[in-house]
Amino acid sequence: MNAVTPFAVPQDSPFGPDNLPYGVFSTAGGPRRLGVAYGDHVLDVGAAARATGAAGELAGLLEAPSLNPLLEAGRPAWRQARAAITAWVTAEEHRAAVGPCLVPRGEVTLHLPFEVADYVDFYASEHHAANLGRIFRPGAEPLTPNWKHLPIGYHGRAGTVVVSGTPVVRPSGQRKAPAEPAPSYGPSQRLDIEAEVGFVVGAPTPLGERVELRDADRHVFGVCLVNDWSARDLQAWEYVPLGPFLGKSFATSVSPWVVPLDALTHARIEPPARDTEPLPYLDDRSARPPSGLDIALEVRLNGHPVSRPPFAAMYWTYAQMLAHMTVNGASLRAGDLFASGTVSGPDRDTRGALIELTWNGEQPLELPDGTTRAFLQDGDEITITATAPGPNGTRIGFGEVTGRISPAR
Amino acid sequence: MNAVTPFAVPQDSPFGPDNLPYGVFSTAGGPRRLGVAYGDHVLDVGAAARATGAAGELAGLLEAPSLNPLLEAGRPAWRQARAAITAWVTAEEHRAAVGPCLVPRGEVTLHLPFEVADYVDFYASEHHAANLGRIFRPGAEPLTPNWKHLPIGYHGRAGTVVVSGTPVVRPSGQRKAPAEPAPSYGPSQRLDIEAEVGFVVGAPTPLGERVELRDADRHVFGVCLVNDWSARDLQAWEYVPLGPFLGKSFATSVSPWVVPLDALTHARIEPPARDTEPLPYLDDRSARPPSGLDIALEVRLNGHPVSRPPFAAMYWTYAQMLAHMTVNGASLRAGDLFASGTVSGPDRDTRGALIELTWNGEQPLELPDGTTRAFLQDGDEITITATAPGPNGTRIGFGEVTGRISPAR
Repeated sequence: MNAVTPFAVPQDSPFGPDNLPYGVFSTAGGPRRLGVAYGDHVLDVGAAARATGAAGELAGLLEAPSLNPLLEAGRPAWRQARAAITAWVTAEEHRAAVGPCLVPRGEVTLHLPFEVADYVDFYASEHHAANLGRIFRPGAEPLTPNWKHLPIGYHGRAGTVVVSGTPVVRPSGQRKAPAEPAPSYGPSQRLDIEAEVGFVVGAPTPLGERVELRDADRHVFGVCLVNDWSARDLQAWEYVPLGPFLGKSFATSVSPWVVPLDALTHARIEPPARDTEPLPYLDDRSARPPSGLDIALEVRLNGHPVSRPPFAAMYWTYAQMLAHMTVNGASLRAGDLFASGTVSGPDRDTRGALIELTWNGEQPLELPDGTTRAFLQDGDEITITATAPGPNGTRIGFGEVTGRISPAR
Repeated sequence: MNAVTPFAVPQDSPFGPDNLPYGVFSTAGGPRRLGVAYGDHVLDVGAAARATGAAGELAGLLEAPSLNPLLEAGRPAWRQARAAITAWVTAEEHRAAVGPCLVPRGEVTLHLPFEVADYVDFYASEHHAANLGRIFRPGAEPLTPNWKHLPIGYHGRAGTVVVSGTPVVRPSGQRKAPAEPAPSYGPSQRLDIEAEVGFVVGAPTPLGERVELRDADRHVFGVCLVNDWSARDLQAWEYVPLGPFLGKSFATSVSPWVVPLDALTHARIEPPARDTEPLPYLDDRSARPPSGLDIALEVRLNGHPVSRPPFAAMYWTYAQMLAHMTVNGASLRAGDLFASGTVSGPDRDTRGALIELTWNGEQPLELPDGTTRAFLQDGDEITITATAPGPNGTRIGFGEVTGRISPAR
């Protein structure tokens, strides 16, 4: 496809013509606009729609200051927009009109790409769940009895989902070590990450209806990266019996680019073999195409790679998560975000959280500067990146989600 | 005050001039408008602002189709709006202008009064938490070790908060009785209610800042009634280790009227004595005025009163819930809703959930029609009402939150 690309994008660019992820950007003093990453540029898609004389309905969706109107519009509109944008960056006839709509990436500020409606976080990695079981319930069965029957999840705080680059203030709160008689108050001493993949929902559903497994792709617009920052000490004290609350709600970072599901056709793979018979509403054994996704993540701590979690190893797929999340009739809204939970593979250097990488702090990571980490220190920066297979040996890039820890206030 | 009221409102009206709760209404074919309940009428406050020549900023807030702009504006604007509306319904000089802005309640449809940002549900009744402990962990300590140190809470699904009157479709999902070898799928057989009080947040805060106990009233606009419908069988199977999810997310009903906190001055009481030393950020022992609220709830099942839960008995106050919810730096948005959790008193007929009233179904309720209920049947209607003390022996009414169970789809 690059042969006909009028704007030079190297074959190995993570943002080539087969990706076209959406984000929201601004330039100095300007308003927020919808953009698509293309090579080292951001295409102002609203401006491109005007410049190319795109149909009014499509232009209206692309001229919005967030992705939500396009999310709301549903898959036919998503396909129409993708086809139009593909033509704008690849067809010679659009070159003159579209060229002025490309803004160098270095000149833009990236914002939260969509207004988050509800945020749900799952727990879909068997390796992650089993590791936590082994750490906290040694000698017992690593997985809870429900784990292989349903994708366990919970609602997180939508209002504290922030875009990559937002500083993360170390949270304070109550913690109590088992040996202590009473809880104390103070900054979290066990601040952790969770490297996750997020799914962005469009095409709302009414209350009382469910989304069946085979219809998941009508409602999943695209994919982003998520760092579900976690204060393990706050979480440990608070979470029985109603689950994580303040241990998670202080910040969740997402990447600025939402990769369309339509860009991940070549990343689809069979999920790993499951050893438990699923109930029919979760039975994806005959689903074509499969909903496993071969996304390769990398986690860097202060620039140093500490883990390479494979999303391909996830037990539950995004389609199963969505079918489960709505099986009780819960409605969907444009902008709903559901994340996979920590992505961990079978090996130590593929675990997506420090609590697993350091085995609850007992085996600290050694960094190239000679320091060690059990959990995050003030000033530490975590960056998660990912790529997935594209056509003809290319890679679809997800950009990055990054965040630096600020001292507690 | 009624002596100077130009529009006849009986002294015993739940919606007298000292209440003035906000809601959103429409009349046949018309748009949604902000209204205030007054006697048997709804005052179209946007129209009244125009008719009385109110200041532009105030008029703009009151002409909105939801409460969110006023919530966003903060307490000085809330006070200004309340003073203006009080004058409109009580001062003779406004009678001619305001009269045409009063719409008979029978002619309006009531809608969700605000757009829910994040929804948090607490677990703040000691009687409720202890009853559930006795039911599910007989012989053990009824409360978990953290219960008296912090108000336990979790995030619910904001997108399925619905206004009173919305039918509630019986949810389906996975359930597994302890004796069964594997879960099965089907409609919930243990559908329950939770009678709660909800708090509506305005005056947003930035990420990383906390709201101290003494500043809670800057951020709590008002109070509504909440029925947190709960599928106990779905919840029991799913909730370990990440808390309630599908057992709750199918619907949460709220009353159409939000009673301003400023209308509850006479309802403020000391919370019950606590037997555990609070950490300083939750220590309200010297708080004046106190943040306990003497709200008397009533729960009716098909019109028959089954419980009278006293909010006065709650262990944790709304101010403590808010201080805790933000102690980790979580930001607030206009439209955030936090609810108290089931309101239960010490006696059987003051419990706010069927699981307590029927002791996990072992002691079914007997209804006047000769039938019994362990949990809800299709067609059952639950209505929660409440009042609180107003000035001069009057009662501040909260209206009602009602919902009828539709069969599973």
